[in-house]
Amino acid sequence: MTDLSSDPLRPHEQAVPLPAAFDAQLWFIGRIRTPWTQRGQCPRRGDPVEGPECRIELFEPWTPGLTGIQRHDHVQVLYWMDRARRDLVQQNPNYGDRATGTFALRSPVRPNPVASSVVRLLAVEGPVLIVRGLDCLDGTPLVDIKAEFGNTR
Amino acid sequence: MTDLSSDPLRPHEQAVPLPAAFDAQLWFIGRIRTPWTQRGQCPRRGDPVEGPECRIELFEPWTPGLTGIQRHDHVQVLYWMDRARRDLVQQNPNYGDRATGTFALRSPVRPNPVASSVVRLLAVEGPVLIVRGLDCLDGTPLVDIKAEFGNTR
Repeated sequence: MTDLSSDPLRPHEQAVPLPAAFDAQLWFIGRIRTPWTQRGQCPRRGDPVEGPECRIELFEPWTPGLTGIQRHDHVQVLYWMDRARRDLVQQNPNYGDRATGTFALRSPVRPNPVASSVVRLLAVEGPVLIVRGLDCLDGTPLVDIKAEFGNTR
Repeated sequence: MTDLSSDPLRPHEQAVPLPAAFDAQLWFIGRIRTPWTQRGQCPRRGDPVEGPECRIELFEPWTPGLTGIQRHDHVQVLYWMDRARRDLVQQNPNYGDRATGTFALRSPVRPNPVASSVVRLLAVEGPVLIVRGLDCLDGTPLVDIKAEFGNTR
């Protein structure tokens, strides 16, 4: 992870010292391919209807986990915002006159930078899902895919 | 984490060898308190309308991250299913005649056991959120809370 903790804060933002030890660990189970290579290009929120087609590429040994996924119109995707700093508890994304708590935002800047989007599943091509509705940089690590039902998002 | 990888498989289930090295790490930022102390008691899915009130307790130093969260009727909660095995790519939750891929399910059994629920936010009491709509065991570790907007769940 890039260490961004020395980046300057915006007015009203608050950073905290990070805990010394982690509590749990993740594997990256795949990679997300999108048209966006710089953070400024990413949409603020993915659009499952009008957004561009993106690819979710599963790594081995996880590909048998896709069996049956084509029965779902929508899936939830969890991914790792590996470029975001993790020490801000209050943020000021619009340079306003006050800060908002990290947990009252969906910013990638958060203690555990796991992003979540519900995407439309267009096609399954072997170990690759073609979807609409993502918002992240090309190359973003994949953490999970879950069947999506209307009431559990 | 309890090692459950030697538990017997159900018919049609498939386990894979786990990767040697992890790719990313999490902090547990709080703890979830629910009425359920055994897995068999947990509902299959949380109910934000009729489900019981549950508590989400934030740890320090993260509590300033709640500023402004009371403006949201619903929040998304990510939590760590620390009792689930991580090596199954195909599962048979109903002992049926075939398996379903892990990514076509919402089972806690998955490579990265991060669960996600959208809950109704009833009250904020200092570092504690009172919510309805969870489905997990009492004591479940908290990974993230995000503002919830209808179209991003």
